Amino acid sequence: MSAPIVHGGGITAAAASFGGRPDDWLDLSTGINPCPVALPDIPARAWHRLPDRHLVDEARRAARDHYGSGEILPLPVPGTQSVIQLLPRLIEDGRIAVTDERVAVVSPTYGEYARAFASAGFAVDAVDDLAAIGSEHRLTVVVNPNNPDGRVWPTDTLIALHDRMKAAGGLLVVDEAFGDTDPALSLASHAPQLSNLIIFRSFGKFFGFAGLRLGFAIARGDILARFEDWLGPWAVSGPALSIAGSLLRSDVSPIRGRIDERSAGLHAVLKGAGLQISGGTALFTLVADARAGDIYTHLCRHHILVRKFDYAPDWLRFGLTPDPAADRRLGEALQRFER
Amino acid sequence: MSAPIVHGGGITAAAASFGGRPDDWLDLSTGINPCPVALPDIPARAWHRLPDRHLVDEARRAARDHYGSGEILPLPVPGTQSVIQLLPRLIEDGRIAVTDERVAVVSPTYGEYARAFASAGFAVDAVDDLAAIGSEHRLTVVVNPNNPDGRVWPTDTLIALHDRMKAAGGLLVVDEAFGDTDPALSLASHAPQLSNLIIFRSFGKFFGFAGLRLGFAIARGDILARFEDWLGPWAVSGPALSIAGSLLRSDVSPIRGRIDERSAGLHAVLKGAGLQISGGTALFTLVADARAGDIYTHLCRHHILVRKFDYAPDWLRFGLTPDPAADRRLGEALQRFER
Repeated sequence: MSAPIVHGGGITAAAASFGGRPDDWLDLSTGINPCPVALPDIPARAWHRLPDRHLVDEARRAARDHYGSGEILPLPVPGTQSVIQLLPRLIEDGRIAVTDERVAVVSPTYGEYARAFASAGFAVDAVDDLAAIGSEHRLTVVVNPNNPDGRVWPTDTLIALHDRMKAAGGLLVVDEAFGDTDPALSLASHAPQLSNLIIFRSFGKFFGFAGLRLGFAIARGDILARFEDWLGPWAVSGPALSIAGSLLRSDVSPIRGRIDERSAGLHAVLKGAGLQISGGTALFTLVADARAGDIYTHLCRHHILVRKFDYAPDWLRFGLTPDPAADRRLGEALQRFER
Repeated sequence: MSAPIVHGGGITAAAASFGGRPDDWLDLSTGINPCPVALPDIPARAWHRLPDRHLVDEARRAARDHYGSGEILPLPVPGTQSVIQLLPRLIEDGRIAVTDERVAVVSPTYGEYARAFASAGFAVDAVDDLAAIGSEHRLTVVVNPNNPDGRVWPTDTLIALHDRMKAAGGLLVVDEAFGDTDPALSLASHAPQLSNLIIFRSFGKFFGFAGLRLGFAIARGDILARFEDWLGPWAVSGPALSIAGSLLRSDVSPIRGRIDERSAGLHAVLKGAGLQISGGTALFTLVADARAGDIYTHLCRHHILVRKFDYAPDWLRFGLTPDPAADRRLGEALQRFER
């Protein structure tokens, strides 16, 4: 068991240190859409009965059509975190043609990949370039677009990496958790032809329903069957399946429009405060600043939580503000920062 | 990967074979309370944000007070199924003082225990008597009260079994999934003194919220820490934590009263039809009848689903009917069965 990672979302802990009621804080510490659409109707049986097959199947078909995964029906999972935890077991399992114990994680990125593999006894190489991935790596993780710096890798590059991994008997995991705002980046439509590819999609970030704990895995049938077997029956809640079945079939262009509008608002505030934007996606913005630690503390004193990084003390990640009033609140707090 | 187990709750499959709309079927195939209390208010942030620590802590405190586990704060898990899947790993893990590969499951019982251990390569002894458990068993599973036959083991007997398992370096798992209707049977208040005991509790069955996917594990701190680590952050959904925080603090005597009333109604119908009740709990009733297979099919033709058992072709398990009208519907269907 390695030490837990401090993620965004820890408003309770922040309020305990800096005061204020958690509900009064402005939480910019995650990459979750702060403007969710209205909660769809949830039928009573989704709450009260075990999630029945038709609820699962309907969510899978809606996910297939939304993500464009062709003949692959994405597997609903209780948050992509749940399948990140299963990746070491997938390598250990004899039926996947990988036998060594070295994995590559294109880094810096979401910390739970390295943690899951290190916990399971694997050697994890944090590589910053795809060229550093060799035949000794039985599995490679690429988050695309990457969190927190927003780096993106073109489809052709990732397909070539897949083919290289496959030739050596390895697997490529592409985490598209922040992929919904730029669907052209997704490998989902190529997945049926890429047998050693596993794609993870997050439902909660784009739709603004992170509390649901829902993600999807897209991969060849025997890999999805293994995940399903390991997660066991009824892994995903009825309300989550029901909401996914509704929202994945809805017109998402208003959601994209709203996210883009909020992202533009955030950028204007950050630039207005003289901060240098060094990366990000539509759902979050990365700032590089030598005073990052002080800005973080200053914002906490104004009951605004952003995300800092142990491994990159110059970085701060800002999630989207929910509305122009929050933009002004952030802007005013930043103006008061002693330069 | 062993073959999946056919559980109750498969209304979609039953309707595909026997016709009718799934919503029009009477589903008596599970042991879930069919009369749930009203859905409590769920704050918006439970849906939209990552489940924050205070939501988790509040659910844990409510579970501690409800289950009476003293100094142990029960760990919320996304359905007890999720931790059943982790039990083999707990034995494999070097930090638990168990090193052999033989487990005992008091049987017949909920099939996912044997499946999880067999999938992980363990030898599973299905024992029908606690006396058959020996020092060769590194872990024993007892479901109390047992599903589907309703057998119960007194607290003293299970404490003695725990002490015996512990003396040999083994673990005792007591699954109290159906324990809420008879709290006097629970080992929860003894758990702080029983270091090699793991208790599983189900939230959804008694409260009638099986779609939520929520259970609790009660055990010593390092075992719960390991489960928490393996499940990863945010394993349980925000709505589930929020609802648990409300309902576990509510007065549950009306729920028990309603379940008892429904159980009496079901018993009257089954006895009126001349069926022999051979076991059960307040949430389900087991019938033993040489014609069980024919009765099952007959009831399916009337769009009533009960639970049959591959390993006991004479058994049928009837879940509670939701109301007297459903009692009458079941009674009339049974009256039409050709004797």
